[in-house]
Amino acid sequence: MPAFKTVRGMRDFLPRDAERMRHVEQVSRELAQLYGYEEVITPVVESYDLLAAKAGEEIRERMYAFKDLGGRKVALRPEFTASVARLMATKLRNKPKPMRLFSVGSLYRYDEPQYGRFREFWQANYELFGSDKPEADAEILMLTNDLLTRLGLRNYRFKIGHMGILRGIMGQEGLGEEQQNRIMQLLDKKRWEEALTVARSADASQNCLTTLKKVFETKGKDAFQVLKRAEESVQEYEKSVAAVENLREILELTRESGVKLEVMIEAGFARGLEYYTGMVFEPYVPEIEMALSGGGRYDKLIELFGGEPIPAVGVAQGVDRIVLAMKKQRGPPKIAKEKVVVIPVDEEYVAKAMELSSILRNAELSVEVEVMRRAVSKALSDADRRAVAYAVIVGPEELKEGKVVLRDMKKREQRVVEIKNLCEEILGSFR
Amino acid sequence: MPAFKTVRGMRDFLPRDAERMRHVEQVSRELAQLYGYEEVITPVVESYDLLAAKAGEEIRERMYAFKDLGGRKVALRPEFTASVARLMATKLRNKPKPMRLFSVGSLYRYDEPQYGRFREFWQANYELFGSDKPEADAEILMLTNDLLTRLGLRNYRFKIGHMGILRGIMGQEGLGEEQQNRIMQLLDKKRWEEALTVARSADASQNCLTTLKKVFETKGKDAFQVLKRAEESVQEYEKSVAAVENLREILELTRESGVKLEVMIEAGFARGLEYYTGMVFEPYVPEIEMALSGGGRYDKLIELFGGEPIPAVGVAQGVDRIVLAMKKQRGPPKIAKEKVVVIPVDEEYVAKAMELSSILRNAELSVEVEVMRRAVSKALSDADRRAVAYAVIVGPEELKEGKVVLRDMKKREQRVVEIKNLCEEILGSFR
Repeated sequence: MPAFKTVRGMRDFLPRDAERMRHVEQVSRELAQLYGYEEVITPVVESYDLLAAKAGEEIRERMYAFKDLGGRKVALRPEFTASVARLMATKLRNKPKPMRLFSVGSLYRYDEPQYGRFREFWQANYELFGSDKPEADAEILMLTNDLLTRLGLRNYRFKIGHMGILRGIMGQEGLGEEQQNRIMQLLDKKRWEEALTVARSADASQNCLTTLKKVFETKGKDAFQVLKRAEESVQEYEKSVAAVENLREILELTRESGVKLEVMIEAGFARGLEYYTGMVFEPYVPEIEMALSGGGRYDKLIELFGGEPIPAVGVAQGVDRIVLAMKKQRGPPKIAKEKVVVIPVDEEYVAKAMELSSILRNAELSVEVEVMRRAVSKALSDADRRAVAYAVIVGPEELKEGKVVLRDMKKREQRVVEIKNLCEEILGSFR
Repeated sequence: MPAFKTVRGMRDFLPRDAERMRHVEQVSRELAQLYGYEEVITPVVESYDLLAAKAGEEIRERMYAFKDLGGRKVALRPEFTASVARLMATKLRNKPKPMRLFSVGSLYRYDEPQYGRFREFWQANYELFGSDKPEADAEILMLTNDLLTRLGLRNYRFKIGHMGILRGIMGQEGLGEEQQNRIMQLLDKKRWEEALTVARSADASQNCLTTLKKVFETKGKDAFQVLKRAEESVQEYEKSVAAVENLREILELTRESGVKLEVMIEAGFARGLEYYTGMVFEPYVPEIEMALSGGGRYDKLIELFGGEPIPAVGVAQGVDRIVLAMKKQRGPPKIAKEKVVVIPVDEEYVAKAMELSSILRNAELSVEVEVMRRAVSKALSDADRRAVAYAVIVGPEELKEGKVVLRDMKKREQRVVEIKNLCEEILGSFR
């Protein structure tokens, strides 16, 4: 039989990487608690229509879609927001606002596999519903900054824009929503010339084209200076001016509340998902080209799923990309929990060894019992190889006196200790 | 637009249930660490051939199988063991044994939805590779018992059997593997009469039929007495006798190592998955009819996936079923972490409120900022409704002196406190 492999685009996480993934997940969850975001778990399999509703053509075409055995058209979720929007439009419809929700898990997109991009990936997703105020946007930025800091990442920078700037221009010029979406998608891929071509073919005025072009070029690290330039460029477009003003308020609030964000403001920045309406952002580290997370405001989404209009802002943290960034930046490796093995000298003492392992685990020690019935010397050399800290050797002579042999694997010393003091002996040595 | 729903058989976990699920997952992970099981994360989407290889016909027919956009036949995993076996036969092939692996996540089977049974469900999976000794089996039983105890479950009982008992009879009588599997499946569903009919149609001897029947009836809570009866029934079948003997050793080891297992031994107990070869078990609570977990020994699995022969024993803990059992037994509800809200008296103080929220979160408090710009009285009555413990009110008069108002929501008392003491004031009150 041929050896089986993972399906193309899928991957395994072996123990060291799995531990990093769970660490990021756990810190994300703790942060959710600290900010008052309640966790919900939604299914991986959702109705195709739900997921397709506002995903944007590009994602729609790359969904893992199929019919289940009952003939229902379903798909594996490519993002969390549609599922959370479904909850907000149905089961959570009547809950008072604001409502803060957290979800974490795996997502699926049939993208071309490449460095750091897989067809199964993980996100930790935070969404704040009910507030259209800039402090809600600022909270999402602050939370993202907090997460990256708590995970020990360095030198990351937030690329930030506002969908209202371009939409304000295009809307006032009478471009239809589909044309706007098409242009936004091209911009997300930095295909600016093509975007301009689409605008031209949609009969945009020369003034519109000039302004769009100017907006694309308006970017820089000095946030307030860039916003000033952007405002000058779009002064003839009322909604665009309001968008710049909104972004300024968000960034002012963030700064005034003591958060030091390194930013790269791009007035022409668009994200691929069609549902964004306001501020959008993506944090980057210099070591990898992909965004670690992606977030923004989407005030019209819930009503599209059949609910009341509810303003919303959120962020999806890319768990596996953050792990990649952590590995690239070689953060201090976590010190593995010290391990203990319990070795019976022969099969007569297996039960006693298991009993002792139980006692040690109750003291929160990580304990393995020798289950191979190998000779003590062999079990010890295996423990050595695996950097186990302590071995407990269970044999008849010591047992008669209520004792066992405790071996410090690093110091290569051993002594006879009373079983009733065993936990303390080991825990004492650990400190 | 119609309100969207979850797909039939799928479900959402709202915050209280999601918290329970994550609690069981977290305790499972801690236990994995305590027993030396290393976590791996394998994909939800695997090749159909891998998953179908040894799943058993029944599960094979109920897989979520489909072709991906590249035309590959894939399926959503219906269990973890095939994926872990794939790892053991490939990437982990050359690692020294014993090897202990842990995985946790969602699984998919197109079963008829009913009470406690969904098409997406969660398991925490432990597998111990490399040991054919009874202490390995005993460790898996001990670990499962530890998990259920740590989660506060009561009155659970382990249904335990051994595949070698029935297989020993059928093998010696010359029944083919397929007939054996068919009979095992019927037995798993307690369709004993049909199982006997299949045996009869396969030309089993009268002696075989009589023995099978006797084995089905051999069960009870007094483990060693039942094993004695079983041994007498199968005395003409050498491998069956060895199987009974193996089970006795496992249970003796468990008892001698101080674990008090409540058991129901069933000599004719078969589990649905075809790959089990030795001891099999399922724990139950009286409140629900379904097994909380399922485990056993499967010594021939890895070679079927193209690896070397490696003995193995493992258990899949049913995370959502355990949550159901915990709810049924009404374990003491977890005390929710006390919350703080920070309310600016008007928009001028929003940034200050956010800054304070940061400081409080750094002290590990769960903090929400008022992001709706509601009047203080309205924000307070909302906080009251949500059982928030403390409100911090940020206004100009107190700020001038480096102070804020701290309100104890339960006592309905408030006082002015220095910002530099705010964390201590709140943490002090919490204790």
